Formats: sequence, structure tokens, C-alpha cells
Amino acid sequence: MVNDRIVLDVMGGDHAPDVVLDGVVLVCNPDGELYVDPARLILVGNEELMREGLSKRDCSASVHLEDAAEVIGMDEKPGVALRAKPGASIPVGIGCVRAGKAGAFISMGNTGAVVGAATLGLGTLEGIRRPGIAITTHMTGRPVTILDMGANVVPKPAHLLHYALMGSTLASDVDGVKNPRVGLLNIGEEASKGTDLMRAAHELLSNSHLNFVGNVEAGEIFGEDVDVVVTDGFTGNVFLKTLEGLSSFMLTQVTQQLDAHQAGWGAEVLADLRHHVDYSEYGGALLLGVNGVVIIGHGRSDARAVANAIRQAARALDVDVNADIVRALALQSP
Amino acid sequence: MVNDRIVLDVMGGDHAPDVVLDGVVLVCNPDGELYVDPARLILVGNEELMREGLSKRDCSASVHLEDAAEVIGMDEKPGVALRAKPGASIPVGIGCVRAGKAGAFISMGNTGAVVGAATLGLGTLEGIRRPGIAITTHMTGRPVTILDMGANVVPKPAHLLHYALMGSTLASDVDGVKNPRVGLLNIGEEASKGTDLMRAAHELLSNSHLNFVGNVEAGEIFGEDVDVVVTDGFTGNVFLKTLEGLSSFMLTQVTQQLDAHQAGWGAEVLADLRHHVDYSEYGGALLLGVNGVVIIGHGRSDARAVANAIRQAARALDVDVNADIVRALALQSP
Repeated sequence: MVNDRIVLDVMGGDHAPDVVLDGVVLVCNPDGELYVDPARLILVGNEELMREGLSKRDCSASVHLEDAAEVIGMDEKPGVALRAKPGASIPVGIGCVRAGKAGAFISMGNTGAVVGAATLGLGTLEGIRRPGIAITTHMTGRPVTILDMGANVVPKPAHLLHYALMGSTLASDVDGVKNPRVGLLNIGEEASKGTDLMRAAHELLSNSHLNFVGNVEAGEIFGEDVDVVVTDGFTGNVFLKTLEGLSSFMLTQVTQQLDAHQAGWGAEVLADLRHHVDYSEYGGALLLGVNGVVIIGHGRSDARAVANAIRQAARALDVDVNADIVRALALQSP
Repeated sequence: MVNDRIVLDVMGGDHAPDVVLDGVVLVCNPDGELYVDPARLILVGNEELMREGLSKRDCSASVHLEDAAEVIGMDEKPGVALRAKPGASIPVGIGCVRAGKAGAFISMGNTGAVVGAATLGLGTLEGIRRPGIAITTHMTGRPVTILDMGANVVPKPAHLLHYALMGSTLASDVDGVKNPRVGLLNIGEEASKGTDLMRAAHELLSNSHLNFVGNVEAGEIFGEDVDVVVTDGFTGNVFLKTLEGLSSFMLTQVTQQLDAHQAGWGAEVLADLRHHVDYSEYGGALLLGVNGVVIIGHGRSDARAVANAIRQAARALDVDVNADIVRALALQSP
């Protein structure tokens, strides 16, 4: 059985440790809508700082604390930092999962360091060669899962097939999407479109047991016709940064307009728009394909995003998405 | 001297020929803000249809008409269609430029057919091996030119250098940007980031005489720090489709909110937002690198977008951007 405990990196993120601890308080409230059993939580970071922070927040929940003497900064080079700081919260947290003390690890910190520590420390699932980062947006009111967002910049066609399979399992297990429609992000509908990689991936996906609906263009992600979108890490990362940059830009524009018109209900409109475009409302990005549940939250995460990431980890453990991925992969390659 | 006449494909686009002719009427109005001398215009398409359409619009401007018996549909395969329909408005229009009857060609029709007809029919500028599609957004209130948007899906590093050089010349000539800051679209700041292509292009750009500011992430396109962004046609096309899909989606969301609150000034807010996110407000996409000015408008263009594309063509001819590109290229590779 999968270990249902969750390690949370208290030191990672632009506003750590404060918002991370605020997030812990949110999930520990038994009357709150975001409740997660505190006994499942292991916080990793500077122990004294965590103890003080929790006491300052009147949080008496019996969460477990794991001391980590060092911190890897957001802008440190992942490889260098992991070698220089084996006692940092990210490697220590991943170590907890590796040692079987927990099933999941969450960090709002350095993405590259989490990917590196998790890939090396936990290893990949049986049959998976390269992990991929998946995000799930709910912009159109229903979940759309997209991967890879940058873990694997120059993938092989087989990696994209694996991403499709993992994304499909995630959509079905975690979001309850039946027989998820899988699309390949490309620059036109026809199988002959795009790069050699995309043509080869199209062929693999066409011959798979997945519900492959063919190539999709980026605009279709904001439509109704696809549940899982697969791409290489370069294109995925450009897509994600465009999404973040443009939605933030447009929210600013709308805010200015509402302010100019002194619309009393402006805050309400903005909250609703933000809710639609902000994927952190639904948790973080999942590093799929490693032996464990690994969630990378946005560095700018607020307490609510942290709480949602914790709930997302709990859900992924409860449904045991990794076991289903391994099963689906065995079906695919008998 | 460059021929300053402009051929306009009246048959291309989702709402052709009506909106195209409406666009002609807009520019032919000597009192309008979008005025272009009608004597510069050559309309290509079904002559009877054009004559009727202009007369129905009480347009007495002395525009020249060039008959084309066929039309290439938006969804036709470009290569096949160009071979099967040599008498279609796109090849006939390009033929006018080739024959020296005009300096520019504009179509809201099949992008692939325009790229194919222009590349084969006009040839490339001296030193340029592959044309690229450039768009200029004014989202942040100032022009940002991005290329390639899909003409060259798997470019070589030297093509990206040429795109940078052409984009930089365009920004400086047409938009008056001094010493344009050129960025390479990538997934991180460091020179080592991204694919082999991006690393090689980074090196070429670093050693060029351009004002190269290094790698930029997609989100920075909505910021203040770059004037020209260079990328491969695959990534560029995904970026463009994301931009179009997301901005259209967000405008729908804002519209719904404004409607729900019965905000009387809603139309004003929306017009302003649209103005910001809609690049067709500033013309179409430019196919840079061919022997002539070629503009590809959006299939969904309205009359104003058509008029703006005509003005854009006039401007590109007036400043003779292609001559400057050839000069800049000669400077680059002595």
C-alpha cells in the first residue's frame, strides 16, 4: 500500500516560510473546506523557524517536523545547488519519500532542483524513461491537463506517448474524466504537420489504446474538445509562460478599467477572472513518472495555493495514480 | 525605385469579398483617418463581383481591377491548390508583383498558399534563405515584433539570425524603434538553456551587430524589455495560437461579467481591451524575406483590419524596408 503521508517544503517559494505555514494552517482547520488530516503532514525546513511560525499562528495541529539546515534559492543552478547543499529542504524532503516515511513531496521552490532531486532520488516508474511536468487548468470550467511543461526539453517520440498515457491516467483518476481525449499540440490538424518529433509521436499515439483525437492547436486548449494535451518541454514551457504572462497582463488591464470606472463590484469580477485563469487555485504542477507523488507549486503561491497543493497530493496518493500509470503502461507495451 | 502599388486579394478570408471591399472603401475615403491614395490599389479577384461590390458601395475611386477566375479556399492544401489553380487570386496577385505592376501583395486568405506562391513566385531577398512571418503586437502600448510565426517550422540557426536582422530592420523602419532590443524566445535566461538550435542561435546573435539582449521567456513579451523576439516557426505558431485563443477566451469572460453586472460602459471597456490584444488593429502578418512586401491578414479580419493591412503595406513600401534589410544583411556578412 502507498504511504499516505505528505512532505511539505516550508522553505521553498517567493514568500516562504510565511505563506507555506499559512497554507498549513488552512488545511489543518477541521471545519475548513480545505481540510487534510494534519497527521499526514511532515514539514521540512529550519525546525526552530517552523516551530516558532506554527506557534505564532496558534496552530496546535500535531504535524511532524523534519529539520533541514539549508535552503536552495529560487535562482540557484539546480545541479550545483544539489551537490553543494545535501542538507537543504528539497533533498531532505525527497529523502523522506525515498526512505518510505512519506508518499508525496511538495515544494514551491526551485523547479529544476525539485526535478533533479526527485528524478535521481526516487527513480522513475517502471517503463518510464523521462519524467514530465503536468499542469491542470480549469479555465474553461473543466480540467485540461497539459504536459510536459519543461522537464524534458528535447524528448523522444516514446516519451510523448508516455506523457499521453500518464496525463490520461491522471485526468481519469484525479479529475474523474471518463476516457480522456488526448491531443498532440501541433501547428495544424493533419498528421503530416509540424516537426519530425511530432509526426513520429502522432503515429505512436494513433496506434496506442489511448483516446487520441489527433493534433490540436494551442487555441483549442481554451475550447471544449480535448482533456489532455501532450507536447515537448520546450513548447510546453513557452505555452505556460505565455499563459501566465498574458493572463496577468489582461487582468491588469481589466483592473485599470474597473478602477477607472470606479465599479464597486470590481473586486468580485477580478476574483472570478483570476479563479478562471489561475491554475494554482487547483494545486501545483505534478512531476509525473517518478516513484512518488511530487508537486511543484508556483513560486508566487499564496496560502490558498499551498493548501490546494497539499489537497492535490493527498488526492493523488488516495487514488494511487502511480499504480494506475504502471498498469496502463503494462497494457500499452505487453 | 520600388513600385508603390499594392495588390489586394479580394477573394481571401472568412468574410470575403464583402469585408475586403468594405476595407477598400475605408482607405479610399480622402477624409478618413485610414486614407491611402486609391491610385495605388490593384484589386484582384472575380472582376464582375468586384465591380458590382464597389458600385453597391458607391465607391467611385479609380482603383485598378485585375481579374482572377479562381479562388483558393481557406482549408485547401497549399501545394495542391497552387498547382491546380494557377488562375486563383493568390497566384495572380503575386504574379502582378513579380511582373513589376506592384510592390506589395495583401491577402486574408490561405496562409500556406500565400507563403508558397510568394516564396516561389518572388524569390527571396539576396542573402536570405528562408522567409519568416512576423507579427507586431501593440498590447503593452508599444510595438513588439515577433517572428517566425510558422513559415519555417524547423529553421537552421542562421535563419534565426536573419529573422532577428529582418525584425530589427522592420521595427526601426516601420515603427520607429531606435536600436531595437532583440531577444531569443527561450525557456530560461542562460545561454545554455533550451534546444541545440537555440544555443547555436544564441551564439550567432551574440556575435552579430544587432542589439541582442539574450534569451527572453514568453512572459517577457508582455513586458517592457524587448522590441523584437525571434523564434522557430513551430514555437512561434504555438505562441500566436495561444495568444489568440487566450485573449479571445478572456474577452468572453469579461463580456459575461460586464453583462451580468449590466455595466453601461461595458462596450467601452471591451473596445479598449480588444484594441490592446488585437494585433489586426495594426495590420496583418508580414512575410519577411521575399522580393516584395507580402502581408497575410487574419482570416477573420474585419473591414478595419483590411484597411490597416493596406496602410501597413503602403508604409512598408514608402520606407522600402526590403532595401534596408538587404543593406543590413550585407553589413552583417561582409
